[in-house]
Amino acid sequence: MNRPQPIERMIEAIKKMPGIGYKMAERLSYHILKMSAYEVENLIFAIENARQKIKYCSVCFNMSESSPCPICTDSERDKTTLCIVETPQDLIAVSQVKDYKGLYFVLGGALSPLDAIGPNDIRIEQLVERLKEGEVKEAIIATDTDSKGETTALYLAEIIKELNIKVTRLGYGLPVGGDIEYADEVTISRAIAGRKEM
Amino acid sequence: MNRPQPIERMIEAIKKMPGIGYKMAERLSYHILKMSAYEVENLIFAIENARQKIKYCSVCFNMSESSPCPICTDSERDKTTLCIVETPQDLIAVSQVKDYKGLYFVLGGALSPLDAIGPNDIRIEQLVERLKEGEVKEAIIATDTDSKGETTALYLAEIIKELNIKVTRLGYGLPVGGDIEYADEVTISRAIAGRKEM
Repeated sequence: MNRPQPIERMIEAIKKMPGIGYKMAERLSYHILKMSAYEVENLIFAIENARQKIKYCSVCFNMSESSPCPICTDSERDKTTLCIVETPQDLIAVSQVKDYKGLYFVLGGALSPLDAIGPNDIRIEQLVERLKEGEVKEAIIATDTDSKGETTALYLAEIIKELNIKVTRLGYGLPVGGDIEYADEVTISRAIAGRKEM
Repeated sequence: MNRPQPIERMIEAIKKMPGIGYKMAERLSYHILKMSAYEVENLIFAIENARQKIKYCSVCFNMSESSPCPICTDSERDKTTLCIVETPQDLIAVSQVKDYKGLYFVLGGALSPLDAIGPNDIRIEQLVERLKEGEVKEAIIATDTDSKGETTALYLAEIIKELNIKVTRLGYGLPVGGDIEYADEVTISRAIAGRKEM
């Protein structure tokens, strides 16, 4: 028997999401068919509500209910320090660190020549404009530490230095709570290079 | 910074789906926010369309656009053989086997004392009613081969035998295309017990 077309269509639509294969999409689809009407309405409302209310902050390109976002309009924040991240999720992660009182800039991705993502596909131009306003004295590059993030960091560092702004990169080393046994060679090597006197 | 409430709400709604943890729900949520309006409409339409059009077949409890479903109304099928499966997905899998021309019955789950799923929580009563109609001469139990499926199979076998209907269980053994090296002990032991002369 072929699967009924409406179920097949739902599976195909769900399979387009990142990290979801056919079997997972199938499982989710049959689950959705078994959910109560209330649960489905709640799911769809949550999606539509977020789509409607969330916009990009015109200053830092974070996702927020207001533009400029609450961080950019917070007068107590240090406007001379700008932390540059790849995604809004990364911004949330960094903002959990209470010591950091500066502002943010969300690139919207990382450079990736293999995926044909170049400087025009992420917000490099907007970042340069922002930096040219002159308030920022230090740019902290907090892109991922994978190859795309590193490429992006190197590229950004060159551009930002030309604007006579101090550029720093988040420190490398062992993750806190980690087991040295499971740390990779490159991380240990960076941790040795970044060792501190006790 | 706290995440904007509409995003948090979407993550919570998506996290309720089976096999989706917080990080995956977060990833899917941000992906949905970046999708085009057309893609989101397509996703929501696919869900609502399936929810509206798909119903349970009143005879076999398969999910179908019509009730009775195309299998139950197919006059060329052998009405004396009934294959009992746990879910509509299992039915699709068995129905790929062209040699099987009988009918089906979907239990809607398996017995699982640990999850408090007993005989009244799956369609055992409806199965017994169906079998009492007298047409079925052989019931093939095709529940999963995990502990829940086995428990269910044993339970069903006892009930069905009392109705003087032949009960069979799908054969155990090595999966075709499998590597003996990776087969578990129990499967190999079953395969030896079920060996065939060549």
